[in-house]
Amino acid sequence: MKKVLVLHGPNLNLLGTREPEVYGRFTLTDINERLVVLGETLGVEIRAFQSNSEGALVDALHEARTWADGVIFNPGGYTHTSVALRDAVAAIGLPVIEVHLSNVHAREEFRRHSYIAPVCVGSITGFGWRSYTAALRLLVEGDE
Amino acid sequence: MKKVLVLHGPNLNLLGTREPEVYGRFTLTDINERLVVLGETLGVEIRAFQSNSEGALVDALHEARTWADGVIFNPGGYTHTSVALRDAVAAIGLPVIEVHLSNVHAREEFRRHSYIAPVCVGSITGFGWRSYTAALRLLVEGDE
Amino acid sequence: MKKVLVLHGPNLNLLGTREPEVYGRFTLTDINERLVVLGETLGVEIRAFQSNSEGALVDALHEARTWADGVIFNPGGYTHTSVALRDAVAAIGLPVIEVHLSNVHAREEFRRHSYIAPVCVGSITGFGWRSYTAALRLLVEGDE
Amino acid sequence: MKKVLVLHGPNLNLLGTREPEVYGRFTLTDINERLVVLGETLGVEIRAFQSNSEGALVDALHEARTWADGVIFNPGGYTHTSVALRDAVAAIGLPVIEVHLSNVHAREEFRRHSYIAPVCVGSITGFGWRSYTAALRLLVEGDE
Amino acid sequence: MKKVLVLHGPNLNLLGTREPEVYGRFTLTDINERLVVLGETLGVEIRAFQSNSEGALVDALHEARTWADGVIFNPGGYTHTSVALRDAVAAIGLPVIEVHLSNVHAREEFRRHSYIAPVCVGSITGFGWRSYTAALRLLVEGDE
Amino acid sequence: MKKVLVLHGPNLNLLGTREPEVYGRFTLTDINERLVVLGETLGVEIRAFQSNSEGALVDALHEARTWADGVIFNPGGYTHTSVALRDAVAAIGLPVIEVHLSNVHAREEFRRHSYIAPVCVGSITGFGWRSYTAALRLLVEGDE
Amino acid sequence: MKKVLVLHGPNLNLLGTREPEVYGRFTLTDINERLVVLGETLGVEIRAFQSNSEGALVDALHEARTWADGVIFNPGGYTHTSVALRDAVAAIGLPVIEVHLSNVHAREEFRRHSYIAPVCVGSITGFGWRSYTAALRLLVEGDE
Amino acid sequence: MKKVLVLHGPNLNLLGTREPEVYGRFTLTDINERLVVLGETLGVEIRAFQSNSEGALVDALHEARTWADGVIFNPGGYTHTSVALRDAVAAIGLPVIEVHLSNVHAREEFRRHSYIAPVCVGSITGFGWRSYTAALRLLVEGDE
Amino acid sequence: MKKVLVLHGPNLNLLGTREPEVYGRFTLTDINERLVVLGETLGVEIRAFQSNSEGALVDALHEARTWADGVIFNPGGYTHTSVALRDAVAAIGLPVIEVHLSNVHAREEFRRHSYIAPVCVGSITGFGWRSYTAALRLLVEGDE
Amino acid sequence: MKKVLVLHGPNLNLLGTREPEVYGRFTLTDINERLVVLGETLGVEIRAFQSNSEGALVDALHEARTWADGVIFNPGGYTHTSVALRDAVAAIGLPVIEVHLSNVHAREEFRRHSYIAPVCVGSITGFGWRSYTAALRLLVEGDE
Amino acid sequence: MKKVLVLHGPNLNLLGTREPEVYGRFTLTDINERLVVLGETLGVEIRAFQSNSEGALVDALHEARTWADGVIFNPGGYTHTSVALRDAVAAIGLPVIEVHLSNVHAREEFRRHSYIAPVCVGSITGFGWRSYTAALRLLVEGDE
Amino acid sequence: MKKVLVLHGPNLNLLGTREPEVYGRFTLTDINERLVVLGETLGVEIRAFQSNSEGALVDALHEARTWADGVIFNPGGYTHTSVALRDAVAAIGLPVIEVHLSNVHAREEFRRHSYIAPVCVGSITGFGWRSYTAALRLLVEGDE
Repeated sequence: MKKVLVLHGPNLNLLGTREPEVYGRFTLTDINERLVVLGETLGVEIRAFQSNSEGALVDALHEARTWADGVIFNPGGYTHTSVALRDAVAAIGLPVIEVHLSNVHAREEFRRHSYIAPVCVGSITGFGWRSYTAALRLLVEGDE
Repeated sequence: MKKVLVLHGPNLNLLGTREPEVYGRFTLTDINERLVVLGETLGVEIRAFQSNSEGALVDALHEARTWADGVIFNPGGYTHTSVALRDAVAAIGLPVIEVHLSNVHAREEFRRHSYIAPVCVGSITGFGWRSYTAALRLLVEGDE
Repeated sequence: MKKVLVLHGPNLNLLGTREPEVYGRFTLTDINERLVVLGETLGVEIRAFQSNSEGALVDALHEARTWADGVIFNPGGYTHTSVALRDAVAAIGLPVIEVHLSNVHAREEFRRHSYIAPVCVGSITGFGWRSYTAALRLLVEGDE
Repeated sequence: MKKVLVLHGPNLNLLGTREPEVYGRFTLTDINERLVVLGETLGVEIRAFQSNSEGALVDALHEARTWADGVIFNPGGYTHTSVALRDAVAAIGLPVIEVHLSNVHAREEFRRHSYIAPVCVGSITGFGWRSYTAALRLLVEGDE
Repeated sequence: MKKVLVLHGPNLNLLGTREPEVYGRFTLTDINERLVVLGETLGVEIRAFQSNSEGALVDALHEARTWADGVIFNPGGYTHTSVALRDAVAAIGLPVIEVHLSNVHAREEFRRHSYIAPVCVGSITGFGWRSYTAALRLLVEGDE
Repeated sequence: MKKVLVLHGPNLNLLGTREPEVYGRFTLTDINERLVVLGETLGVEIRAFQSNSEGALVDALHEARTWADGVIFNPGGYTHTSVALRDAVAAIGLPVIEVHLSNVHAREEFRRHSYIAPVCVGSITGFGWRSYTAALRLLVEGDE
Repeated sequence: MKKVLVLHGPNLNLLGTREPEVYGRFTLTDINERLVVLGETLGVEIRAFQSNSEGALVDALHEARTWADGVIFNPGGYTHTSVALRDAVAAIGLPVIEVHLSNVHAREEFRRHSYIAPVCVGSITGFGWRSYTAALRLLVEGDE
Repeated sequence: MKKVLVLHGPNLNLLGTREPEVYGRFTLTDINERLVVLGETLGVEIRAFQSNSEGALVDALHEARTWADGVIFNPGGYTHTSVALRDAVAAIGLPVIEVHLSNVHAREEFRRHSYIAPVCVGSITGFGWRSYTAALRLLVEGDE
Repeated sequence: MKKVLVLHGPNLNLLGTREPEVYGRFTLTDINERLVVLGETLGVEIRAFQSNSEGALVDALHEARTWADGVIFNPGGYTHTSVALRDAVAAIGLPVIEVHLSNVHAREEFRRHSYIAPVCVGSITGFGWRSYTAALRLLVEGDE
Repeated sequence: MKKVLVLHGPNLNLLGTREPEVYGRFTLTDINERLVVLGETLGVEIRAFQSNSEGALVDALHEARTWADGVIFNPGGYTHTSVALRDAVAAIGLPVIEVHLSNVHAREEFRRHSYIAPVCVGSITGFGWRSYTAALRLLVEGDE
Repeated sequence: MKKVLVLHGPNLNLLGTREPEVYGRFTLTDINERLVVLGETLGVEIRAFQSNSEGALVDALHEARTWADGVIFNPGGYTHTSVALRDAVAAIGLPVIEVHLSNVHAREEFRRHSYIAPVCVGSITGFGWRSYTAALRLLVEGDE
Repeated sequence: MKKVLVLHGPNLNLLGTREPEVYGRFTLTDINERLVVLGETLGVEIRAFQSNSEGALVDALHEARTWADGVIFNPGGYTHTSVALRDAVAAIGLPVIEVHLSNVHAREEFRRHSYIAPVCVGSITGFGWRSYTAALRLLVEGDE
């Protein structure tokens, strides 16, 4: 596990400004920086990308095939609606971990179904930015 | 209420050419012009944007946070399928009114569910281009 | 559009006293007065009627055939349960607009289905008493 | 039938590399070339386009109104989730044939529902790249 | 079988004026007269009652216990929504036949479920005013 | 209405021996004879046919196109499961009345859905052999 | 707790005559008298009202706001179908206890859902007339 | 009615410490003591038992057959999931009353279905510890 | 691919007379002749069989094991209801292609589910008689 | 129990050739022979019949009334779709045991529902040809 | 097959006393004794265990791994609710046969679904104590 | 975070022996040891407990209130069926993390719903024994 794509889905660019009582006070930049720091400790290069576009997220997953060893993916609202992203995760042949900042199981009913989780290695839900750092550790450990 | 984003979703660029018996004979430009005229009467600046891309619509909602006081949003086909747009509406902290040209309740079953409506102020459905002008008046009145 | 029936369904007589944080502080009399004033501006005579009885509301719709040119209808709790009112709206051959004070889409699941909306011209939901005045303007404009 | 748009949806750019036991060994380029060759035999010009973006696919369908006589459309994962693409197909007034490489009926339950099929001329499912060539022949024959 | 209540539910007072292509051209008076004439032939007194009110229909069923030997009941829109009427039919201990003018099975999905039918002797659907006369004959024959 | 096919579905050949408390004491021959007698009164020739085979019932409906003016059809258990019989009824262009001996609405839940009823003129349910004779009268009356 | 409305819904006027094996042999008058006697013991004035009309029951609940301290409500068949009554109970701001004579959970499936229970203090089901007297005691005790 | 088993299901041992705003401030001991006191008044011996184990609750119901005349049962979370407890209640041939402290109908959707209620005499829901004392009175009265 | 069974299900014998606006003007003989002609071009012998009987269709599939190399199957109304035909297709070990004349996805909801499709090679829907000829070409090509 | 009908449903004639890993290597003749041998031991005459036709199976059940004392029935694919066979089993008044070779509960979801089982004495599933011999023993034992 | 665990689930200890018209008159001891006798004939040692506790049943299945060659399991009410028992059956790697005394398919709807059956060898339902002896024979025969 | 309860649900005692390709090769002792070692690093005392009994798991959660600062909980099969455990987690007022060894989202449909997750801090799924160690780190970090 040398290089990891950290992929953030729709609305995550607003992090820190959007309903902080639900999603925490960290901005996306704060999360990415924490991951870079942890990555250095673990000997892993982090490249982060955010998009609000389902197609751009599919593209990013495809490109990851050419350079990354694993993916940490927060699909945001597309978690519950995107077969295209599910197919992309299944197609690229890389270990992908689904992460969520908030405990999606404790929110609206429609947030309890994930198209993405069944084709991932596993998922981590509800720990704020720590969902990402835990995922990074698990990606690296799983690679040992 | 000084500035209002009028956001048109997928396929609305075809307006006036697409099934006019369902959607009316007005083009999108006609609607935008009527809104500008009405806006002038009400002292409101109108900026209109149309996109067929879910991600671009999310982006437009995000940007509206920096300049607009309210949003009139016709999510088109994304009404029934987009959690990402719902999250964007909920995140931006602006009053948003959902509008539809046709009476979606009288069409296919799947058009009767809206992911967007629960996070809007309200919705106006079935009055052709007048759905938009009524929404503009209500945005302004609600601001008094 | 010379004469309009404003028809209020069950529990709307309590308006202003019942959960004002949900339904607004206006009484039904306040709403009716606002509609009369607006009607005078638009050259429309307003006759308002409220009943808690499904049958009396059906009767009022039937009678409207003999004198009214359009109907503004807030079916209240009958929105979600009454096929009889749906049939009455469909039968009378007048333009009917469904209105709701609160955003019913943001409340209990069972409030998201309307038997009435599919046979109306359109619906306006979530703007308090302004749902009614917007409906009156749209009835008149739609008649031009 | 002089000109045909061949529209490939999300993840089809990976064709030949992605799960070949499910989707066949051909690449997208192989399929497009076969279609061009067959098109020459049939006197039809083929223009192919692939995108992972729902919005870009909607755009491509809209543009086809200005130059194409028919469309062969593999909506990929959007088959099961996109009302926007359904509306685009219905709006453009061209004959559209839905194709799938694999037998979607034999896979996950959610792949058995198509938003697109009801507004197409017909659909061809399960024959690998031959789904496309059969579609091309049927477009041309249907035009005689 | 000496006396029969003919009970007409909501909106049936509009008969003959309301969508005659669906419900036939006869008025309710025409139907009642035909029943009286047939009743004379069969030696049965007919008393007809129509109401748009669920409660008034319940009352009429209760009163029938004191004078009638059987009931012909067209519950109209209450067919699909009224447990109260179902309980009334079950409670009165008289033979009740459900009738419908139009073929309710060929209309909207929600019209295919009847709360009333399971507690009736039987039902006759789709023959216009003849549904009533057939019911009257069957009530009398069943009494032999 | 000169000639009528009376078509009996599966298990009806057991009539009179099978659960007489549910289906009455009459045999199928008894019912057919009653219909012949009534038919003579009405000037209608009756031809009856019973089969336990879905395909044979489809065949009988098809043949009826060449000689019959109407059909009385008790589809028995196929009522709830046969699209093939529904298509046959829809295809032959004759008036068909669905009849049932017992009140199917008062039995198991699965007996409350009919594939056949929506494509018939109407249905008569729950009156034993009188369901058939009432149907014959209605066929003839409807033909006047 | 000085004054209590005892509100009986549809068909309860038949009590004692209707299926006594299900509902007990007491008449409504018997129940009301028992409540008056118990009320005297507890220092509570009882006023009872029965109606078969949904609207009249809504009216009675509204009026109770002006004179009663609590309500014992048997909504009968409206339990399962009336949003209007639910809204009335929620609106009046009085403690309401739902009671049923029979164990509705042991009957038809549709009787297991109550629109009313969620907005009541609690419910008592299955004890015949004793459901009412237990409710009266609990209203008074809850008031201590 | 000489001896009554009071059976408390899972988590009720935490009573008074667990979410007192939902379940009241009383401890289980307080409830049991109140029941003993009331039992003495009514001439009934009370034996209370609490367990978090479904099997131990089944055992306690079985044993009650050998000594008790009736059961007051709060099945807690097993209300919604236990067929084994339902079968035990049905098997023992004693009158059982289901009680709940809180109004379960006003909470999560899954709490609105009870496997136990259909095989009980009746149920009392929403009155805190008074649900138990009301049940005891009803058990004794029902025995008169 | 030397010999192909063309198997037509229920009601297809009426083709050309039954709702030609839905199913085209061709008779079944016309379709079979076109297939024979195309078969000669492709070096394939065609044997066609039609039956309205589910069992006879199962038999025909079984017999095909002894002489055919592939099957073109239009299961008609049995598409949506027959597990027996599904099992027969799965059992015979021949490539089977499901065909439909009309676009079944655009018709009633119940026509959108196929028991047969998941055990076929693929399906072709909506092209009238050309669905069959396209299937024949694909059977032969798939055999290369 | 002197004579037993062994009734095999659709596709069972292929036994031994069809997916032996699922259904075992025995042919239908092998099973019948084993049953005859066991029957001789038990003093029971066995008559076996197989058909792919639902109607022929109904006929065979009817005829069994005239000669058999019990039935062993493997309804194959009709298990999940045939109300006609259910009615036939219920009508004939003989003890019928449903058998299946494979464990239908471990296969597709739609195979978990049986229309036949509720009207049988019992069912035996998953033991290959031994399902039949166990059924024969149970028929005979149940007769003692 | 030398040693067999016979595992009885909740409420089966009441056998013979609980609703004998449904479950037969045998006690659990009677059944166990019959199995021991039959076991001696077949050269199989029987060890029986009953518990009302889901956890104790899981424990017993686990222990069986250390001494038994097969299991006969009547999961009682846990059949329909226990994933834990399903997992235990799947985990232990022994042949398990599900048995039921009564025909569960003919009772309440919720009794028609089994979590246990899909992970068993097969199931035997509806033959009283003979369900157990048939299972024992099949376990032994399957072992040959 | 000084002391942590590690709670293992049903069947986890078989770990390492049960389907290692699904659950990994570690035994429960291995996992507990790894947690103790990690706990020493983090300054946290670990106490582990496993039970196959729902009630014993509820008890363990209750006791944790008296000594633990947090809980790592793998509810095994009770995840999908236990309201009692959900209530226990909600009642104890400690941070609880749900963990699963395998990716439950990729298995049977019924494993995708968790009663426990909505009342936990978060959940970690699919990483074998590392799900536990990641949970321990997150518990400690969340406590900082």
